[in-house]
Amino acid sequence: MTIRIGILGYGNLGRGVEMAIRQNDDMELVAVFTRRNPADLKIATESAAVLSIDEAKNMTDKIDVMIICGGSATDLPVLTPQFASMFNVIDSFDTHAKIPQHFAAVNETASKSGKVAIISCGWDPGMFSINRLYSNCVLPDGKDYTFWGKGVSQGHSDAIRRIDGVIDARQYTIPVESALEAVRSGKNPELSTRQKHIRECFVVACDDADKERIEREIKQMPNYFADYDTTVHFITMDEMKRDHAALPHGGFVIRCGRTGANGENSHIIEYSLKLDSNPEFTSSVLCAYARAAFKMNLEGARGCKTPFDVAPAYLSPLSGDEIRATLL
Amino acid sequence: MTIRIGILGYGNLGRGVEMAIRQNDDMELVAVFTRRNPADLKIATESAAVLSIDEAKNMTDKIDVMIICGGSATDLPVLTPQFASMFNVIDSFDTHAKIPQHFAAVNETASKSGKVAIISCGWDPGMFSINRLYSNCVLPDGKDYTFWGKGVSQGHSDAIRRIDGVIDARQYTIPVESALEAVRSGKNPELSTRQKHIRECFVVACDDADKERIEREIKQMPNYFADYDTTVHFITMDEMKRDHAALPHGGFVIRCGRTGANGENSHIIEYSLKLDSNPEFTSSVLCAYARAAFKMNLEGARGCKTPFDVAPAYLSPLSGDEIRATLL
Repeated sequence: MTIRIGILGYGNLGRGVEMAIRQNDDMELVAVFTRRNPADLKIATESAAVLSIDEAKNMTDKIDVMIICGGSATDLPVLTPQFASMFNVIDSFDTHAKIPQHFAAVNETASKSGKVAIISCGWDPGMFSINRLYSNCVLPDGKDYTFWGKGVSQGHSDAIRRIDGVIDARQYTIPVESALEAVRSGKNPELSTRQKHIRECFVVACDDADKERIEREIKQMPNYFADYDTTVHFITMDEMKRDHAALPHGGFVIRCGRTGANGENSHIIEYSLKLDSNPEFTSSVLCAYARAAFKMNLEGARGCKTPFDVAPAYLSPLSGDEIRATLL
Repeated sequence: MTIRIGILGYGNLGRGVEMAIRQNDDMELVAVFTRRNPADLKIATESAAVLSIDEAKNMTDKIDVMIICGGSATDLPVLTPQFASMFNVIDSFDTHAKIPQHFAAVNETASKSGKVAIISCGWDPGMFSINRLYSNCVLPDGKDYTFWGKGVSQGHSDAIRRIDGVIDARQYTIPVESALEAVRSGKNPELSTRQKHIRECFVVACDDADKERIEREIKQMPNYFADYDTTVHFITMDEMKRDHAALPHGGFVIRCGRTGANGENSHIIEYSLKLDSNPEFTSSVLCAYARAAFKMNLEGARGCKTPFDVAPAYLSPLSGDEIRATLL
């Protein structure tokens, strides 16, 4: 059986989903939906249509799962509940603090429509969350650590770009190696924000800009940089394009726990990702959960789910017999 | 609600489950069942009974989940199907090649009784399998690597003990660091058995034993040692007791995959365990899946499952709202 996929939104994430579909033989891209003029959009899949977002409502019998590729700030809070009233949907909603509210809104429309919606299918939230949950359940007496990087933080890069005199910027979040080692040693250290990550910034400034002021404004920016050790490098636009075009990311989820009559035995569970392309990896996660949504809905499931609610087997194109024989 | 647990078998694993239950506030140990004389067995939980295995059939209304703590060679193939006809059951069956056959036998009795049985709940199979499955689904174009150790292999230690002139032995499986590094680099190397692991053996021999012969017999033993670089150290019984009493283990599951139009982006997913006590960690996994079996059966599930079939949320004592708010 082929799972017929629609992509809503064609930025980095939508293009990544298009590529990921090619790696999954049981999936077919039917159409990309856009808020732009469809005639202006060129996609890589010749067999797929490019349609206006307004046409989606006429495609409910042609698409099994709609993968919603938008931003968490303004796109997904509107689009995911709206499209869950028509389709099985997947998104990568990643504003941790607003997940309960997003879940409630999506659950309302998906429950009514009888569709399955799986939200927050990326790596954090997503694969990292799953690992936090498994580790917490297996080692109840323990402590969690999540480190991010080395990788580009789009939010922090954008924040620098908003400073007067800045033309372009790239911010790398980098875990502090000694903090990682302290955690891995099983010592359960208490670590401040500053002790866990450093922030490294590459900035292209206007020729006449006051670089000392820019550097000061970056380092003192509340929430984004003030609580971190931050370094700032001024570079040329050529250097920016040559050395900082990629969007790598990754990180570590570590839980240290103790067992035994007196907690005498220590255990470390570590999960890590090293990603050349943050959006392409997220797109790959979205595709795997699209398969799960399709299979779960066929079995009668409905409403909003998160990766916590999805048994691993649903992500696989293989049968239960096959995965038990080859991967268990 | 309290989940009432029975433990069948009181070796390393059973004792570990007893300790793990103390870390889970929603669980209570009701009884330990043994094939030995119950009067001879002293357990750590005063409130729990010690009963003959023959009395289990009279306890079906007092126990929600029976955790079967036996060996995979002869105990579990008999006990798990038998007890699944009376209880929700959990085991850590770990003979990979015989999982399909064990699954079929357990599924038959559990389906008839209307109970849930979850088999192969340890770390390999178990947590490692889950990670292999997730990684395969997220990165379909990639390659898997599993490394074990550093840790004590009971099977290999036993094999050495069967050699004439050997009093005691402990075998450590150790991953080859350079192989791990080659995998982590994303080069997708082809690795032979010998290139992935080395085997280090500590042996207490009889005073009059021919140590050269023992060493030769170990190194040439087919399946166990012949395909590996093996080192053998002869030590005293005092040294064995002092330095090799613990049962540490662990390992690494790594998948390297590629994405993008031409596979130009590489991604590494790595999951690792560093365990002071192999049996106590396995026991902790068993307890988490006992909770899942109980919850799934309450919802109407029946039959044999593996960790692949269990949504992560079922392992947690927390509600869906709580895990979404705190761990997603």
